[in-house]
Amino acid sequence: MHTPRQHIPETVTALTLIEFNLVMSETTTAIQSIEWREDHVRIIDQTFLPGRTVYCDIRDVGQMWDAIKKLKVRGAPAIGIAAAYAFYLGIKDIQDVSYAGFKIEVDRISNYLSSSRPTAINLKWALDRIASTIHALREKPIDEIKESVLRLAKTIHEEDKRICKKIGLEGQKLIPKEANILTHCNTGSLATGQYGTALSMIFHAHEAGKKIHVWVDETRPLMQGSRLTAWELDKAGIPMKLVIDSAAGHLMKSGKVDLIVVGTDRVAANGDTANKIGTYTLSVLAGAHGIPFYVAAPLSSIDMAVATGDDIPIEERDSSEITTIGGTKIAPKRIDTFNPAFDVTPAENITAFITEKGVIKPPFTENLKKLFS
Amino acid sequence: MHTPRQHIPETVTALTLIEFNLVMSETTTAIQSIEWREDHVRIIDQTFLPGRTVYCDIRDVGQMWDAIKKLKVRGAPAIGIAAAYAFYLGIKDIQDVSYAGFKIEVDRISNYLSSSRPTAINLKWALDRIASTIHALREKPIDEIKESVLRLAKTIHEEDKRICKKIGLEGQKLIPKEANILTHCNTGSLATGQYGTALSMIFHAHEAGKKIHVWVDETRPLMQGSRLTAWELDKAGIPMKLVIDSAAGHLMKSGKVDLIVVGTDRVAANGDTANKIGTYTLSVLAGAHGIPFYVAAPLSSIDMAVATGDDIPIEERDSSEITTIGGTKIAPKRIDTFNPAFDVTPAENITAFITEKGVIKPPFTENLKKLFS
Repeated sequence: MHTPRQHIPETVTALTLIEFNLVMSETTTAIQSIEWREDHVRIIDQTFLPGRTVYCDIRDVGQMWDAIKKLKVRGAPAIGIAAAYAFYLGIKDIQDVSYAGFKIEVDRISNYLSSSRPTAINLKWALDRIASTIHALREKPIDEIKESVLRLAKTIHEEDKRICKKIGLEGQKLIPKEANILTHCNTGSLATGQYGTALSMIFHAHEAGKKIHVWVDETRPLMQGSRLTAWELDKAGIPMKLVIDSAAGHLMKSGKVDLIVVGTDRVAANGDTANKIGTYTLSVLAGAHGIPFYVAAPLSSIDMAVATGDDIPIEERDSSEITTIGGTKIAPKRIDTFNPAFDVTPAENITAFITEKGVIKPPFTENLKKLFS
Repeated sequence: MHTPRQHIPETVTALTLIEFNLVMSETTTAIQSIEWREDHVRIIDQTFLPGRTVYCDIRDVGQMWDAIKKLKVRGAPAIGIAAAYAFYLGIKDIQDVSYAGFKIEVDRISNYLSSSRPTAINLKWALDRIASTIHALREKPIDEIKESVLRLAKTIHEEDKRICKKIGLEGQKLIPKEANILTHCNTGSLATGQYGTALSMIFHAHEAGKKIHVWVDETRPLMQGSRLTAWELDKAGIPMKLVIDSAAGHLMKSGKVDLIVVGTDRVAANGDTANKIGTYTLSVLAGAHGIPFYVAAPLSSIDMAVATGDDIPIEERDSSEITTIGGTKIAPKRIDTFNPAFDVTPAENITAFITEKGVIKPPFTENLKKLFS
């Protein structure tokens, strides 16, 4: 069952609706990867892309945990949004309890959702924000708290769209009138409420009439570049070429890359940045070739509670991700593997962060702190 | 139809036979990827590995061109050996011609085989060596020339085994008693007459009792690391872990790589080195982390006729290599790609070359020249 892509959630306010329509008419990049539908969440199951566009209706918190774990929904901001809706799904049927009893369930659900993926901080950020709201409303009737949680989930979702748009508009200023841009993984509409983070910069540069061409890293092992980013850029009509991850060095050496833009799963207080495995390598190559290396980072992905990248947990994923592709076995049986999903790029390799509050340049420890003061 | 791996070609001389037996008993890495069988060549069709060990009998030069082009046989030294046998297959049925007529066919076959893959110089090296022999024997009867070509092909094959063994024995001295070694692509018995080049260093370090562990880059797009190197190391019982190519930076940053060893498809006179795409990136990362970066290079892969890496042609291969895997489509239809099979690592990023004449250190322009004087 397919949903028309222009479908507008019934629940958005009049103001949001106007903005939403404006947004829709401005861009061809309006893929809605997550949508609230009356009493459940509808996501695009990204594991089927680009072959098939399969929608998946999620009606309880366990289904969402599974969807996040299996990367049906992925991308740090999108995970945050998905978890927020899932929080509501988790609490909505709790009946006849005291606040104390309700709170026990709230903590359980928060810990459970938090365990789905360890690296992206947006997940924890969304869960903490909801838990705070629940605490603030502790004197209110449980039903009222539940409704507030749903409203907050929708707010987080709508906010993310606005934030991504701002990142795109701010970030595109850094892109020259003609540019070859290299990007890694998927940071587009599929990874966020809309537009994306790093990809939002690219979409907005394109819409501003800049003559850009994108090198899309395929992004092993799960091919978010070839499956998702190539798909989004193709839909938006932006010139691009797909390359294997290890071609990036050759491209830079040949003078074919003017800048690199990536997203992030978590930024530490000093600017160290966790992102999809391979990002660190790109940052070293960028440094060796004098190429600007930009990280698009909504404030929700900046974790002032961790001092440096050493404190960011790095998720290790199943070996089958690198020993099989689409059912095809590509390695001998029982082979040992090491499959970290992320790496950490040290702050000194990063030219600037692009946030919804503008472009942040070094010194990062000082300038990131200012964002939250 | 399978051949026992201990099968000894009928045609080797007594001396070679003894050496061959010695070699066989010394190592578990005695995979024979190419074998001359009376009137044809038998190769392991590497495109089926590691799933199935399929042998392919090659009876004419067109079949070999196809096998080289499609990477059924691959690895610079193995391509040289395969082309040498194919040269004989191409000339053996030429009947009743003058030397002048024979020579026209010889040139045609040489050009034809040479066109199968442009980057590896071993191919051209083997073809030129045979053409020179034919020219030297131009006064002899055609049948005698044919027999000499077959003998020369067998000699090139046997020489390669000895060369690879020497590279292994010399190179293993550079490997510490305990070491984490990273390698890229496949440079083992499958890529050569036997043992391999970079992998020969690893096999011989293991046999010398060194406590080594190998990080095997999967090597997109064609997975020579996961399909072939992992298979060879697994058979040899050498501890290893398979990683995606873009995990290399993370491994080095984490202090988990002590040295990098790779092979080469062509070394220019100044030491610039063409090898599998991704090698250049590894060399930049090695430099950034102070890790030795070694290139195992038989003399047949050193091309003193090209001054620098700028003069080495880089093969671009079909986009299907990066848009599909084992029949699974992993990118949108009609997407643009860029798929260079090789890149060039500048001489200054290389710690040393390991050749059959020993370890060559900088200055390379001077020291490589000495090898041929």
